[in-house]
Amino acid sequence: MGNCQVCCKNFWCHSKNTNVRISLPAVCFLWQIAMIILFGAFVRYNEESDAHWPDYKKEHNITSDSENDFYFRYASFQDVHVMIFVGFGFLMTFLKRYSFSAVGFNFLIAAFGIQWALLMQGWFHSLDPTDGFIKIGVENIINADFCVASCLIAFGACLGKTSPVQLMVMTLFGVTLFAVEEYIILELLHARDAGGSMTIHTFGGYFGLTISWILYRPNLHQSKRLHGSVYHSDVFAMIGTLFLWMFWPSFNSAIANHGDGQHRAAINTYLALAASVLTSYAISSLSANKGKLDMVHIQNATLAGGVALGTASEFMITPYGSLIVGFCCGILSTFGYLVLSPFMEKHLKIQDTCGIHNLHAMPGLLGGVVGAITAATASTSIYGSEGIYLNLWAAGIAVALAFGIVGGAIVGMILRLPLWGDPADDNCFDDEVYWELPEDEESIPPILEYKNHMDIKNPDACVSESNFSVDQS
Amino acid sequence: MGNCQVCCKNFWCHSKNTNVRISLPAVCFLWQIAMIILFGAFVRYNEESDAHWPDYKKEHNITSDSENDFYFRYASFQDVHVMIFVGFGFLMTFLKRYSFSAVGFNFLIAAFGIQWALLMQGWFHSLDPTDGFIKIGVENIINADFCVASCLIAFGACLGKTSPVQLMVMTLFGVTLFAVEEYIILELLHARDAGGSMTIHTFGGYFGLTISWILYRPNLHQSKRLHGSVYHSDVFAMIGTLFLWMFWPSFNSAIANHGDGQHRAAINTYLALAASVLTSYAISSLSANKGKLDMVHIQNATLAGGVALGTASEFMITPYGSLIVGFCCGILSTFGYLVLSPFMEKHLKIQDTCGIHNLHAMPGLLGGVVGAITAATASTSIYGSEGIYLNLWAAGIAVALAFGIVGGAIVGMILRLPLWGDPADDNCFDDEVYWELPEDEESIPPILEYKNHMDIKNPDACVSESNFSVDQS
Amino acid sequence: MGNCQVCCKNFWCHSKNTNVRISLPAVCFLWQIAMIILFGAFVRYNEESDAHWPDYKKEHNITSDSENDFYFRYASFQDVHVMIFVGFGFLMTFLKRYSFSAVGFNFLIAAFGIQWALLMQGWFHSLDPTDGFIKIGVENIINADFCVASCLIAFGACLGKTSPVQLMVMTLFGVTLFAVEEYIILELLHARDAGGSMTIHTFGGYFGLTISWILYRPNLHQSKRLHGSVYHSDVFAMIGTLFLWMFWPSFNSAIANHGDGQHRAAINTYLALAASVLTSYAISSLSANKGKLDMVHIQNATLAGGVALGTASEFMITPYGSLIVGFCCGILSTFGYLVLSPFMEKHLKIQDTCGIHNLHAMPGLLGGVVGAITAATASTSIYGSEGIYLNLWAAGIAVALAFGIVGGAIVGMILRLPLWGDPADDNCFDDEVYWELPEDEESIPPILEYKNHMDIKNPDACVSESNFSVDQS
Repeated sequence: MGNCQVCCKNFWCHSKNTNVRISLPAVCFLWQIAMIILFGAFVRYNEESDAHWPDYKKEHNITSDSENDFYFRYASFQDVHVMIFVGFGFLMTFLKRYSFSAVGFNFLIAAFGIQWALLMQGWFHSLDPTDGFIKIGVENIINADFCVASCLIAFGACLGKTSPVQLMVMTLFGVTLFAVEEYIILELLHARDAGGSMTIHTFGGYFGLTISWILYRPNLHQSKRLHGSVYHSDVFAMIGTLFLWMFWPSFNSAIANHGDGQHRAAINTYLALAASVLTSYAISSLSANKGKLDMVHIQNATLAGGVALGTASEFMITPYGSLIVGFCCGILSTFGYLVLSPFMEKHLKIQDTCGIHNLHAMPGLLGGVVGAITAATASTSIYGSEGIYLNLWAAGIAVALAFGIVGGAIVGMILRLPLWGDPADDNCFDDEVYWELPEDEESIPPILEYKNHMDIKNPDACVSESNFSVDQS
Repeated sequence: MGNCQVCCKNFWCHSKNTNVRISLPAVCFLWQIAMIILFGAFVRYNEESDAHWPDYKKEHNITSDSENDFYFRYASFQDVHVMIFVGFGFLMTFLKRYSFSAVGFNFLIAAFGIQWALLMQGWFHSLDPTDGFIKIGVENIINADFCVASCLIAFGACLGKTSPVQLMVMTLFGVTLFAVEEYIILELLHARDAGGSMTIHTFGGYFGLTISWILYRPNLHQSKRLHGSVYHSDVFAMIGTLFLWMFWPSFNSAIANHGDGQHRAAINTYLALAASVLTSYAISSLSANKGKLDMVHIQNATLAGGVALGTASEFMITPYGSLIVGFCCGILSTFGYLVLSPFMEKHLKIQDTCGIHNLHAMPGLLGGVVGAITAATASTSIYGSEGIYLNLWAAGIAVALAFGIVGGAIVGMILRLPLWGDPADDNCFDDEVYWELPEDEESIPPILEYKNHMDIKNPDACVSESNFSVDQS
Repeated sequence: MGNCQVCCKNFWCHSKNTNVRISLPAVCFLWQIAMIILFGAFVRYNEESDAHWPDYKKEHNITSDSENDFYFRYASFQDVHVMIFVGFGFLMTFLKRYSFSAVGFNFLIAAFGIQWALLMQGWFHSLDPTDGFIKIGVENIINADFCVASCLIAFGACLGKTSPVQLMVMTLFGVTLFAVEEYIILELLHARDAGGSMTIHTFGGYFGLTISWILYRPNLHQSKRLHGSVYHSDVFAMIGTLFLWMFWPSFNSAIANHGDGQHRAAINTYLALAASVLTSYAISSLSANKGKLDMVHIQNATLAGGVALGTASEFMITPYGSLIVGFCCGILSTFGYLVLSPFMEKHLKIQDTCGIHNLHAMPGLLGGVVGAITAATASTSIYGSEGIYLNLWAAGIAVALAFGIVGGAIVGMILRLPLWGDPADDNCFDDEVYWELPEDEESIPPILEYKNHMDIKNPDACVSESNFSVDQS
């Protein structure tokens, strides 16, 4: 019956069919064709990206091309774009043998999600009533990147446990739910949320956590051998962390108001993030033997200040207010990794691979509250001639939560259908399942695998080859 | 006669002299001194980077510094700069033991090439007739980066098989040829090609392929042991892929017209790239056992949409038009890696290390055609008050092709001269040849090398030491 | 008494207490709280980031939000931000087992330093006399990043030999000293130094070198086994190098004058850096057997042109002048690595881990001189309507040097206090000391450690276990 030297390659190890040779190409092709058709039917350039811009300028007495929104937002857009593809992608490369999937699936679902988001958000926000077309410009592509961020957050909770087809399905529904909850929060409740504490982080966080709860794997410990980092994978993850951290001021200011709005949002976020770093390091060191720092905290909790200023960064929260928010969130988020994540896994059956509860869900909730308080204490005298109308914040947070939880439950049920080629419990966190891997002198030596295999699954199986049986997990 | 435990280190393995201790410093010093002299004789600041700008503003009734071209293009320039040095450099780190050379030679030839390009392009495009000086500003340094991109594309075909001196020579001629063909296409034929589908990708692609054909190595299989990736080298390569992918909208919009031109070019490229990703993943999965994805496709074919929109991105190609182009190019490019590259290596004797035929040459050609069709279907009514005069597109594509193939043949012949210190056939893809390598616990174990050596070269040589003889390859 | 298979883990190896579990959290918490209080007392938004900007626009007849300084400098700020966190951070990952600390401590001290810098620089430069508040905007956060750069340069000299608490203390004093010397040079001496050749690089360089001299470790050779790179750590370091190299034009232009000033600074820096690359490669190749390149030179000396144009880049130094500066600095810096660093370590007792003398101190000094010469040869006729008043350059350089050396001596003495948890001489360059490391199949095999341990420290100790004694180093 063959030998057992290298786990995960022999047919008796896994009962699940992880072949995506039909489903993945089908989903990619059909949905991309659908995008083309829908874009053909609905999407056109807006007046600032259309060749009639020179006429538009004349009609509106605009004297300079520098008034085109492109020049107010494009640099920020590129920063956000880096956060989505390199930031989120590399942040998730920390697992020792899941870097291809982390970067690669992130790439795939973001590339699909931004197209679907342009349509969904376009129908809700950018529909030109005169001709029924969605008119797109630089702000739309920023918002599409934002929308996709919520799905990538959810991906973080499911990392290592889902097939690319599942992730595509999750993104399809995630983007759709996002567009609706965003419409309710921004347009119906008239809340402002330029950096998406509520719309992106709270929604995305609870969406992912609920899916992860529905997809709970009681025997995930069987993949324990791959559920950790190696030295270089942690360094790769720091690339993601730093690009997220550095460009977060652009994230929170990208669609803020021109002028002081964008300016202030960038400064506030810059400060909150700096404070998060210090308190994350403090708690990480305080919690460990000899004060040794833990890369998980450094890679994640340092970012919490940016999440928590998603709503309030464009407001007059003051520089020290931003520092206070960052201070608290660094502590909160690191405590989350130390205390809440193990608790949730053990008692709530939520396996949150990247700890998105600590980095996105909690700080996102807090960010909504901070935004509400900041807005409530603001008055026309502080905001100068641009009074900002704010109300129903609690409702906004509730909507984001509800969409995340209810939507996540429904999508989680769909993802449990035995159609999507997801890996077995003893086969998670492994690029081998969906990628052609190079023959690699650095790979985990067979002898180690062998030992793990024995320890975890079939302690006796390897002793005598005749003992092997199909192990249904 | 010594032992054979570690290949590539013993004197009998290689007949070629790879010592570049005289030639490389000589080329670097002399050419850099030449650059200084030529810049001294010819290059000055243009009116927007010169200290007389305040006077210029007054004379031309410019009221704001924000009208300085710097603010329209500098953010895009920096994105392009990242593509050239990190994008191209890291994309080529995928080989297991050629990362130093990939990043390092890319760095060297780009740093030389941008200087020579400023001169060559300056003489053709930016010569001030009043004083005979080349006047440079931000658009010139963007164009210099563009010009160098064509040489880095050609580098991709030769990766692992050339010495740094050869690459410098290739860049010297490549930049010269580029400047001439660009002048013919843009100035004489009046084609527009803001993102360089024809001038950069078609020319650079066929230039590199022809050189690679001239430098064909029949015994390259002797370096097979190093002609592949390892796990972490593929992750490094994804850094290159993603920075190219993310910043390609800046590449195609950097020198487009102010206002709607840049705005539209960025949006179109964003969309085409997203579509490329989905079809690349689809074909990659479809072509492999169990639907497993291949990193080569993900690293490269996902970028094809950006190449193919190089000409048309600033036109009114429409959002769905961009998606269609990206859709087709992702398929085309992945098929190229699956079918054409092996075919070309076997039957046409073109060893294309990075598959530039699939990523640059073919999509570049297609991009020229797409540009021609888009321009032909455009009319003044669509383009508003700025009608664009376009003709002789087929001639433009032909010029790019001719310069690539004829120029590549001539340059290839020059590079065959036995002067340049290139490696032997059994010594390719190896940083050891041109770099001081760290003693490394991660290196390929001698035993493995030993086995490969036996398999590939002298099956009997290692059995008995007395059998060794100088192996001239 | 246990065995000696893995060095650095048994209690008898090191006499020093590297436990930072109290000190690191205490410093982070207390200083962050101090920042919040001081920001609360002193820091507010300036007129361009405050919600009264619309009123300000009206009062000053500003017609467009594009006149907000944010849009002149924010893209450059983000580039500088990347240099500080990814550039400096990853440049220092070259050591085989110090990547966590390189990136992680860089992150920590920069995040603290920028806050303290906003205060210190604010008191000197941005204090609003009408209400006593520091008013901050985008230029302040750029300057804060600049200020921190000087401390990160100093970190480079101490890399691997200091605890995070020491680095925090060093940053506290470094930022303070920087703010004072910057005030003297820019405000009292009226020198200009937009890219900080004097204020940042000369000061930071000599500050770090003096600290390193005070902290001299006679037995550092005991950590020799970790004092080098491995293949992938050198590739990681190239990420740092390239982001520094690519974005240096933004560094030198970020706070230059609007319009031609920023434009020219970017072009000059672009050119000087390109020339540095060629001469660095030339000298590196010339100095080695068979012309093999050395990664240390490529990672560092290629950047020297940017340092040396820190002062002069905004002046009318001319394009060929920039090339000449880059040409010389590439040579100078590479020679420094080849000749001066070994000399300084042997004879001056300065252990300069990253060679900051060659990359920052010397080119910084040269940059001050270049700036002085350029300014002196300038005249109103060249500078058009904006004559620049420059004097007392020699005094400026002297101030930077004096603050670096005297300040470094004082701070070095403080850092020698036995309070800070720094590692023992045989325990340097090791992430193990301050980080929870993943169990790692790539780690240096115990057998190698064992051998090193024997070679270096107690040749006999491991032969018989009964021989072990506490080894006080």
